Amino acid sequence: MSSSFGTILKVTTFGESHSPGVGAVLDGCPPGIALTEKDIQKQLDRRRPGQSSLSTSRNEKDQVRLLSGVENGSTLGTPISMLVINKDHNPADYKDFRSVPRPSHADYTYQMKYGLRSASGGGRASARETIGRVAAGAIAEKFLADNHLSNGRGIEIIAWVSAVGRVQSPLIDLDMITRSKVDKTAVRCPHPKTAQKMIATIEKIKKEADSIGGVISCVCRNVPIGLGEPVFDKLEAKLAQAMLSIPATKGFEIGSGFDGSQMSGSRHNDLFIKKKDRLGTITNNSGGIQGGISNGEPIFFKVAFKPTATIGKPQKTADFNGRPVELIGKGRHDPCVVPRAIPIVEAMTALVLGDFLLRQRA
Amino acid sequence: MSSSFGTILKVTTFGESHSPGVGAVLDGCPPGIALTEKDIQKQLDRRRPGQSSLSTSRNEKDQVRLLSGVENGSTLGTPISMLVINKDHNPADYKDFRSVPRPSHADYTYQMKYGLRSASGGGRASARETIGRVAAGAIAEKFLADNHLSNGRGIEIIAWVSAVGRVQSPLIDLDMITRSKVDKTAVRCPHPKTAQKMIATIEKIKKEADSIGGVISCVCRNVPIGLGEPVFDKLEAKLAQAMLSIPATKGFEIGSGFDGSQMSGSRHNDLFIKKKDRLGTITNNSGGIQGGISNGEPIFFKVAFKPTATIGKPQKTADFNGRPVELIGKGRHDPCVVPRAIPIVEAMTALVLGDFLLRQRA
Amino acid sequence: MSSSFGTILKVTTFGESHSPGVGAVLDGCPPGIALTEKDIQKQLDRRRPGQSSLSTSRNEKDQVRLLSGVENGSTLGTPISMLVINKDHNPADYKDFRSVPRPSHADYTYQMKYGLRSASGGGRASARETIGRVAAGAIAEKFLADNHLSNGRGIEIIAWVSAVGRVQSPLIDLDMITRSKVDKTAVRCPHPKTAQKMIATIEKIKKEADSIGGVISCVCRNVPIGLGEPVFDKLEAKLAQAMLSIPATKGFEIGSGFDGSQMSGSRHNDLFIKKKDRLGTITNNSGGIQGGISNGEPIFFKVAFKPTATIGKPQKTADFNGRPVELIGKGRHDPCVVPRAIPIVEAMTALVLGDFLLRQRA
Amino acid sequence: MSSSFGTILKVTTFGESHSPGVGAVLDGCPPGIALTEKDIQKQLDRRRPGQSSLSTSRNEKDQVRLLSGVENGSTLGTPISMLVINKDHNPADYKDFRSVPRPSHADYTYQMKYGLRSASGGGRASARETIGRVAAGAIAEKFLADNHLSNGRGIEIIAWVSAVGRVQSPLIDLDMITRSKVDKTAVRCPHPKTAQKMIATIEKIKKEADSIGGVISCVCRNVPIGLGEPVFDKLEAKLAQAMLSIPATKGFEIGSGFDGSQMSGSRHNDLFIKKKDRLGTITNNSGGIQGGISNGEPIFFKVAFKPTATIGKPQKTADFNGRPVELIGKGRHDPCVVPRAIPIVEAMTALVLGDFLLRQRA
Repeated sequence: MSSSFGTILKVTTFGESHSPGVGAVLDGCPPGIALTEKDIQKQLDRRRPGQSSLSTSRNEKDQVRLLSGVENGSTLGTPISMLVINKDHNPADYKDFRSVPRPSHADYTYQMKYGLRSASGGGRASARETIGRVAAGAIAEKFLADNHLSNGRGIEIIAWVSAVGRVQSPLIDLDMITRSKVDKTAVRCPHPKTAQKMIATIEKIKKEADSIGGVISCVCRNVPIGLGEPVFDKLEAKLAQAMLSIPATKGFEIGSGFDGSQMSGSRHNDLFIKKKDRLGTITNNSGGIQGGISNGEPIFFKVAFKPTATIGKPQKTADFNGRPVELIGKGRHDPCVVPRAIPIVEAMTALVLGDFLLRQRA
Repeated sequence: MSSSFGTILKVTTFGESHSPGVGAVLDGCPPGIALTEKDIQKQLDRRRPGQSSLSTSRNEKDQVRLLSGVENGSTLGTPISMLVINKDHNPADYKDFRSVPRPSHADYTYQMKYGLRSASGGGRASARETIGRVAAGAIAEKFLADNHLSNGRGIEIIAWVSAVGRVQSPLIDLDMITRSKVDKTAVRCPHPKTAQKMIATIEKIKKEADSIGGVISCVCRNVPIGLGEPVFDKLEAKLAQAMLSIPATKGFEIGSGFDGSQMSGSRHNDLFIKKKDRLGTITNNSGGIQGGISNGEPIFFKVAFKPTATIGKPQKTADFNGRPVELIGKGRHDPCVVPRAIPIVEAMTALVLGDFLLRQRA
Repeated sequence: MSSSFGTILKVTTFGESHSPGVGAVLDGCPPGIALTEKDIQKQLDRRRPGQSSLSTSRNEKDQVRLLSGVENGSTLGTPISMLVINKDHNPADYKDFRSVPRPSHADYTYQMKYGLRSASGGGRASARETIGRVAAGAIAEKFLADNHLSNGRGIEIIAWVSAVGRVQSPLIDLDMITRSKVDKTAVRCPHPKTAQKMIATIEKIKKEADSIGGVISCVCRNVPIGLGEPVFDKLEAKLAQAMLSIPATKGFEIGSGFDGSQMSGSRHNDLFIKKKDRLGTITNNSGGIQGGISNGEPIFFKVAFKPTATIGKPQKTADFNGRPVELIGKGRHDPCVVPRAIPIVEAMTALVLGDFLLRQRA
Repeated sequence: MSSSFGTILKVTTFGESHSPGVGAVLDGCPPGIALTEKDIQKQLDRRRPGQSSLSTSRNEKDQVRLLSGVENGSTLGTPISMLVINKDHNPADYKDFRSVPRPSHADYTYQMKYGLRSASGGGRASARETIGRVAAGAIAEKFLADNHLSNGRGIEIIAWVSAVGRVQSPLIDLDMITRSKVDKTAVRCPHPKTAQKMIATIEKIKKEADSIGGVISCVCRNVPIGLGEPVFDKLEAKLAQAMLSIPATKGFEIGSGFDGSQMSGSRHNDLFIKKKDRLGTITNNSGGIQGGISNGEPIFFKVAFKPTATIGKPQKTADFNGRPVELIGKGRHDPCVVPRAIPIVEAMTALVLGDFLLRQRA
């Protein structure tokens, strides 16, 4: 198992779905950053289940506690440890699953790799593991916001839901989008009409005891030129690793993505033009990254999420011994995890950028 | 700059497009693996330019020399260093580019990050850097081929061109594809009719002094269950980093990819079924990975490549000072890099799997 | 700051002397190891202050709580997080030190490096940071004890006090020493007569409101042949890093150490001789390691500790502004930390060996 | 095997004693540093055998060639690869050793760990591996020399022989010592009278076909305050790892070292005093490091080297099968490696400081 991420700014997460607690240690964070538990709680609240009728009803308050690394509201430069106690869990819900690996879950592979696994729930593969990521990412965001460019603005990271199933949002203005616009609807799509269609899609799939996938788009603004460490730690490469490490992700695109593979060079090339204090590009098919290094344009990428594996519909599968069984989902499940995954995408992005910002200074 | 990749099996590449040499050091490779320069040369020959009329005419033989780590045709368990001397280079071709950053190249970001850059060509951002990757990957492949499953077969990695521009190949039988089938046409698409359309597309774009992107698909067969180290070094996460570290890549999909985000859970879930000595799945939307760990099914992923940034068509761009200029490409360029990128994708895949195989044993 | 150690078995410690808590996360520990809080508490109790009249009276119970990674008394293969709440602290004791950096403490360098530091006590440089190390090391010891050699015995690590000031213990039989023999006296020297002299030395220095240094020796028995990863992660090199990372350490010797530098090769060379199932050596000047790799003989090393920097005697020093001041120590201090450092040396040794055991399998 | 060292400034060495070449790749070196092959050759010449009658007669010119990372006499910020071709080798000299592991060499442990080993000489465990270290260290030194303190002086690293066998040098003035003073005698002890005694000792031991150990001392001047990353990558901890990774080392002391363990706190504590632009200390028992961080005083440490294991005297040992044999050394051997190890100690020190200087900026 490998639960650490980062070179200078390094996060380590811990905790299973039903262990006493979950959390993270963030090491390498610079000293002197204003930080309270509220800064962290804000993003945890956006992640937690039960925020709306669209998500699972597992009702965890997920209150974070800072255990080290912060004194008098300021980071010390020492490792910041954060703990969230696991409260609401009902192992009985999971009892039936012991002899049957849930399809498209990690039950089978964990059992085969480790020879045992958590008695209930997803253990380490549970979405609750992401609590530590979101908590650490919230701190990285504070650090990034403190790094002002010549225009006086810190680095901003904003993610939103750009597709639920086949319902896709039209293009969003990357300069104008804000988190408050994103949070106006429970589905976290800033395009109101599309949001309504997405909500309708999720409510329909929920009634069917089924689930649906979706796509999250993300923009990073005011990123200084020079972040990324070629050739193996290119900025897009570490973003790709970060995103594909989030549970349920199936794809990553930077800039033009798969569409770019269909273009000609003369159309795809981002021609240079003078922009205030720097050289900018007219188009941004590069997604803000050239040669693995940020170029000053907004960084733009997309992440594909598969539908939640836990569904209420009966499934004809096999138990650990290979015997055919029909599996009927009990307990709670999320018909669409994508809205709640927004702060996770933002957190991982902040951790990637924060680490590169510190490596860049090196 | 970060030129190393891997935890136990660790590759370090070196070399610029016009330095005396390019190459790699592969550390952590187990002892006792049969290895000669021929094993490495085979994949380098598939990578080198000038193999067909479809690619650039830069005519480098790219002969690799083993400098350490191998004795009497067997690896010693010590770092294996490999060197390819750079022969054919004509810095004069690049002279015009000194004051003008080439659009969608790394000229501008390297200049801004490092304060200087190679006098000619792409320097470290050049495709010649991938020679070291291919050489190291060829060794990793030998190691993987030696790791026999109960069925007596080693791990096999086969990549092919599944799209050039808008020309897409129909689905390929993942069990039957071989490298010799892939290499039957210069475009490396194993579906003959599609290959002809792809070749026509590339020849047309070449005449227009333009370029075109494409997609590479890759399958890994006979991968043992258990590879991958959650939560941050999930198998798909490190594959994503590896692929997005290859020059010109814009996207990565594992299994169902972005299509999976449009499906319902009841359709997407891979139901279990008994397969000989293990539990298998009926469908493989997971792409051979569940919970970040290989599940014994074929690993399947796709990589999107943008069109080559170097084109012959004039481009209205700006010089380093922001003054408008028209840039006219001289020298050689590749109308479509995707066929030559096949061994690079295979090499990076072999390095990822080889590292996880060694970490898995740990 | 860098608070992680290890490649496969990786410990991350957190916590300041006066933060809400201190602890550690141990990642990469194999699944299926029997583990309860008692296993960890045992070594924490040997480390904690106030065990005897020889040590500081700061009276912390230091009760550890397992927060993740263990279920039904068995490790899951997931990160094991451990927390100890900081209870007994009296920041007022440290008030005077705010404007005066304590001599030979980390006050000055932390202030210069981080621009701020913990309001009281040693912060991250405090000996309380070692609680996390001891907790994680206790788990590594359980893992090592489970790895049986052909002789049916697991790896054993035993450290003892071999010198306090100028009082040195005669040679100890490395095969016979046990922790219970070590713990028979408060000073943890297994040679009873020497122990009495050491205790007298410490009591005398305590009366003088002064402190004294000492040396810890350590043996590792039943270590399999092959641990250590040349050329930079040689076994003795990582042991040296581990030991010199413990607060107050000034030196490290493996095998013959500095004495070995005075010998001739004909005397120093360890000649081979057949021993049961392996080749052994007649002498062990190598300290159980040759070429950076364990050779099956007992691993033997020594660690030098300086006298505690906190003393009661007045000291003529300077404040942060360079003004001369006389500093008079208040609060509690340890006249000799060496006996309490025994479990820290054992813990770091266990973490080094555990990591190499897992890397060796790779 | 683990052949890389460093976090941001990272060296990877390669090569066996009788492989086609040996060398190193140095990644993460900042761009814009003036560098030619001469800068590197200078230290390689100090390392190579055959400089005087005191060392082995293996006559290698050890000419280094820069293969990448440098253009027009300036570093590019890209990986710098360096190659030295192995010329003078006579495998026949080593033929007898195939069935007999040489006492206190790595033959036995390499054979047991890797299942095979280099056909002749020490393979990877040979002192020729250190060529790559010295080459990379010479570049790190150039970088350190460029980092000027407020006093206008760059970082300087000077090592010397402070003991050969029982012949010890009196204390040296750390402010006045220079490399040219060190190199005045073949034994590299800057105290002329002691140097003569050392030379006599070595010549005597050479006649006896035996060998002798020694101690190297090292000072680093003009080191800025703040280098080192507690808690595991303390400056002295990484120095200790670096030194103990050098072949034949047995011990490491920082500042007062083992002598410090015999002192009282009131004597050992380094009291503060105002020094120009910073707070300095009156004594320097800390060796320039407090709390794992450089404090602005000279860094001072010692390294113990055992006598060379290769001797001409007959040795009663056992072959790989455990059968008693008498081993008689042929070929060349070094009666005392310590003078030639000076540039290796300096190189590893430069690599440690260079890495911390870059991490400090982060």
